Amino acid sequence: MKFEVTILGSGSSTPSLRRNPASQLVNVQENYFLVDCGEGTQLQMRRFKIKFQRIDHIFISHLHGDHYLGLIGLLQSMHLLGRKKEVHIYGHPDLKTMIDLHMKISSTRLTYPLEFHALNYDAPEIIYSNKVVEVSTVILRHRIPTCGFIFREKPKLLPLSSEKIRKHKIPVFALPAIKEGADYTTENGTVIPNHELTLPRPPSPSYAYCSDTIFTEKIVESIQGVDVLFHESTFTKELEDRAKETYHSTAAQAATIAQKAKVDRLVLGHFSVRYNDLEPFLEEAREHFKNVQLATDGITINVYPQ
Amino acid sequence: MKFEVTILGSGSSTPSLRRNPASQLVNVQENYFLVDCGEGTQLQMRRFKIKFQRIDHIFISHLHGDHYLGLIGLLQSMHLLGRKKEVHIYGHPDLKTMIDLHMKISSTRLTYPLEFHALNYDAPEIIYSNKVVEVSTVILRHRIPTCGFIFREKPKLLPLSSEKIRKHKIPVFALPAIKEGADYTTENGTVIPNHELTLPRPPSPSYAYCSDTIFTEKIVESIQGVDVLFHESTFTKELEDRAKETYHSTAAQAATIAQKAKVDRLVLGHFSVRYNDLEPFLEEAREHFKNVQLATDGITINVYPQ
Repeated sequence: MKFEVTILGSGSSTPSLRRNPASQLVNVQENYFLVDCGEGTQLQMRRFKIKFQRIDHIFISHLHGDHYLGLIGLLQSMHLLGRKKEVHIYGHPDLKTMIDLHMKISSTRLTYPLEFHALNYDAPEIIYSNKVVEVSTVILRHRIPTCGFIFREKPKLLPLSSEKIRKHKIPVFALPAIKEGADYTTENGTVIPNHELTLPRPPSPSYAYCSDTIFTEKIVESIQGVDVLFHESTFTKELEDRAKETYHSTAAQAATIAQKAKVDRLVLGHFSVRYNDLEPFLEEAREHFKNVQLATDGITINVYPQ
Repeated sequence: MKFEVTILGSGSSTPSLRRNPASQLVNVQENYFLVDCGEGTQLQMRRFKIKFQRIDHIFISHLHGDHYLGLIGLLQSMHLLGRKKEVHIYGHPDLKTMIDLHMKISSTRLTYPLEFHALNYDAPEIIYSNKVVEVSTVILRHRIPTCGFIFREKPKLLPLSSEKIRKHKIPVFALPAIKEGADYTTENGTVIPNHELTLPRPPSPSYAYCSDTIFTEKIVESIQGVDVLFHESTFTKELEDRAKETYHSTAAQAATIAQKAKVDRLVLGHFSVRYNDLEPFLEEAREHFKNVQLATDGITINVYPQ
């Protein structure tokens, strides 16, 4: 079972050969979600051998160029490669206007249906759900309407203890209910409690993506207890004023959020192009929260508890 | 003196790690022109150490994604880097609508003036001219309105023969007219013909960019005798039907145009992603036109006669 995040771009707005602009691939048990899509994302996908056509859902946090300018190219490549399966896009209503305009001016009639889902920037909401995962928004505070996204694996079925199932001679027809948590009543009326027949429920981890945002404790509640938190840290604390002015965060602020939200691990990213050495981000964050790592283009983070 | 073309992208629509989509930098004596701007062009400029802010004029041939999707990112980077000097953009009127929409949805108020020049796709026209260079369009035939561009250096002043100037004791005030081609009349009325006072006029080379187009001899007249012709060759001749169907050209067709237009050199580019080995393009073209080379990302072509 896999719940992984691959960083396609860990940079921010000014172009850099070291770090592509924002984009991540979230893989929850072979359900592939693209989160943000800065310019050059499709090339990063080629670089890291990610198949375009496996992505069915694309979430765009906000309409600053470093988060969406690669979208049209990707949609048109899916088209050129003959895609038939529909693509779902989640974003600000203006994104739909932008997509429609590009398709019109380039005379592109997509080979596949494109389903657009307008996000609500006033309150968090569940925007997608299937058997294994639920995706909801976090309201961030940036210069323009901006959402983060939380991916939560749904509770899993209880694994059966094959030894106990054999011992108690539980019939096959009763197993689905036991996996769901039911006790078992034998023919003579004895109740065997569920916990005697099953193993502990496997974890259902969660991942929160928060980029871009000014430091705000309002998000703490929404992301409380997630396993992995990606939080932007465009600057280090020396530039806290600049962070505030541009509605971004410092490494110390991101780590403070992680600590307050009691997450398990923190990943920092969205680094300003001015930094060559990222070590100071780690050092600064560790003063507030120990379990922290830096996003680098191409790394894959396992969201399951380590 | 320099008249050079740097290839920023030699590929076509499907993304590839080997070749970026269409873009070229034309440098005519330190006047920098960007021709087309596919996704990732600004990163190519970083890669090849080309300064964004030196570019004052951007020409977009047509509105297929591989020719323009990098434009918004570049314009926004110029903005983030604090540009003050105006940028001139030449393209289809829909391009202006697209630019305006992106600036609106991202709440970007550019730090510099952006001057848009709508191209006419019915007949060739001169679209830019300064002291050293004139830029005009070539009408190409593609699925949507498409222009090529021709850059012609203006005729240069005649270099003076310092030996003859001394010998005939020509006064300084008379020199500008002689450089322009005038004869000189001495005080006693003797006419010294211009060619006795000057050296041969230096060449004023020209460069034509023709991408994308179906094979059409109609362009031959417009590009007659240019020094360097860039002509698209998306396919080799085995796929001539596919070329026709998609309004593209083969290497053989591009070379035929070069031969008919009596150009000096031909550069092939806009290669389909399906080709790993480009040697067959060269071989095929050479059957029709000898002086041919392949565009590769990062190469610089000297337009002056070799």
